[in-house]
Amino acid sequence: MAITLSESEQESLLEFSIQVAKEAGAVILQGSKSIRQELGGSSGIDSKKNSVDLVTEWDVKVEEIVRNAVKEKYPDFGFIGEESYSKGLRPELTDDPTFCVDPIDGTTNFVHGFPFACISIGVIYQRTPLIGVIFNPFLDQLFSALKGHGAFLNLTTRLPLSPPSPLSSLSSALIGVEWGHDRTKELVDKKANSFSRLAGDPAFGVAGGKMAHSMRSVGSAACNYALVASGGLDLYWEIGCWPWDVCAGIVIAQESGGFASGGPHVNHDGDVTEEILHGRKYIVVRAIADTPGESGREAQKRIVKEFYETVEDWDPK
Amino acid sequence: MAITLSESEQESLLEFSIQVAKEAGAVILQGSKSIRQELGGSSGIDSKKNSVDLVTEWDVKVEEIVRNAVKEKYPDFGFIGEESYSKGLRPELTDDPTFCVDPIDGTTNFVHGFPFACISIGVIYQRTPLIGVIFNPFLDQLFSALKGHGAFLNLTTRLPLSPPSPLSSLSSALIGVEWGHDRTKELVDKKANSFSRLAGDPAFGVAGGKMAHSMRSVGSAACNYALVASGGLDLYWEIGCWPWDVCAGIVIAQESGGFASGGPHVNHDGDVTEEILHGRKYIVVRAIADTPGESGREAQKRIVKEFYETVEDWDPK
Repeated sequence: MAITLSESEQESLLEFSIQVAKEAGAVILQGSKSIRQELGGSSGIDSKKNSVDLVTEWDVKVEEIVRNAVKEKYPDFGFIGEESYSKGLRPELTDDPTFCVDPIDGTTNFVHGFPFACISIGVIYQRTPLIGVIFNPFLDQLFSALKGHGAFLNLTTRLPLSPPSPLSSLSSALIGVEWGHDRTKELVDKKANSFSRLAGDPAFGVAGGKMAHSMRSVGSAACNYALVASGGLDLYWEIGCWPWDVCAGIVIAQESGGFASGGPHVNHDGDVTEEILHGRKYIVVRAIADTPGESGREAQKRIVKEFYETVEDWDPK
Repeated sequence: MAITLSESEQESLLEFSIQVAKEAGAVILQGSKSIRQELGGSSGIDSKKNSVDLVTEWDVKVEEIVRNAVKEKYPDFGFIGEESYSKGLRPELTDDPTFCVDPIDGTTNFVHGFPFACISIGVIYQRTPLIGVIFNPFLDQLFSALKGHGAFLNLTTRLPLSPPSPLSSLSSALIGVEWGHDRTKELVDKKANSFSRLAGDPAFGVAGGKMAHSMRSVGSAACNYALVASGGLDLYWEIGCWPWDVCAGIVIAQESGGFASGGPHVNHDGDVTEEILHGRKYIVVRAIADTPGESGREAQKRIVKEFYETVEDWDPK
């Protein structure tokens, strides 16, 4: 029998997710410091292999904290976690509430102490993201949202942080992009081409150049969604992420008035379908003000269209 | 007659710079909110022209705050500020103490509300940076340093935040890079090529690829120096900045054990000469641990050499 959630049960679920995110965040901060103590204390341990092992240890530890808390409080709910998924635990998505968790999003940052690593706790319900909680303990920033109830920074400050402005084109946009983990020539070239077209000035030789205000890379998908929800980024795009990287961020962005969608060939109508959630191609645009000739939603779709006409597309490994 | 500064006068000068940075930071935060209120309130004002004008207004306002405070307390000191410099006020550098100030570093972030904009106050003395204060009011982070006295976050936390680890090569590095303002095809291609070699995997087709851990772009030179000083970035490189963008950051990075230098053809011996400070090509490497076969300083120079063998070089406009 399907599990249904009343409004107040959804609110308790949000409360629970926030509580768990705070606990997990404290462990992430401790883990990051501990790793850098370890790397700093010994001479020579800075190989990728070693730091990957160290990260996995903390990734598993944080996922267990969340998984155990869920098991105790919501034993019948589904659970998709990055670490368990990579070990073959891949539950099929049903209409039931399902936690979708990245224990440490931004693991490279976590190792280096670059202050954009976070826990990302999403809850999917009736096959679409319902709750999102992102906690970045390095900056002590908690982003949270429940569908239909708005998005918040540190529980009380409503997102976006300023009233939405119009967005006439990509040329006025600050865009979040990432270099990612696939560093084959094919992929690096596609990214470099895409970024060059976004940055380049068409009046000075860059064919198809958009001359965006600029591009930013903070190294965490969840933090990028939070930045779009805040209004600090106009758009974030990435190919190759997984549902747990984006699930929480999608709700937070949507509840801030943002538009979350998938790759260039999905139906961009505003619903985050299973196809989008599992499609590994993600785009999100901040809330845009209505103007006399165009609603904010129409403007968001226009920006997505302009964006996908500019960048290359590929299928992630 | 040349102005000389005793140890205690240098300490007062640091105190003064911190106080002014805090005042200026509060105005920056207010300005950023005010601009976004303005952009959000009216429909259609999101053209570059308009936001550039709005930024200049606040840039001038913040520089005046600093300049007036300096004029009152240190009337005989030199003053190099971004805004006054761009209006033709270009005092010649002497041995006397000279403030070197970027009122708002990261102006694109300032407009968009992306949380990396700051005031950067440096003091040059006997032709080399003596004091650095960087205050990012969006994250409430104050970085400060006086030559010979260490670097600090929020006055009490010593930098770097964790003990320095070794750094065997760029392949273990998290690197700060920026897309900058010059978007001609020539420049965008040089940047994209450089970034691609830093990111690319030589085992998968990228000739000369270093496969760095990753690259980050936060959009503020001063904030990049502060991140290197913290240890969150291993290295930051940029061509085209000005002395006021980097002066404060250089002292903070140096006092955290970092190595600040210039373009590929300067003498990388650890002193920041006038040639480096005014050379518009900048590189900075975090503190690196000594290992049995190599001092941290030797390792920093090795990393700079590896870096300049990897990226392209050009002269900024």
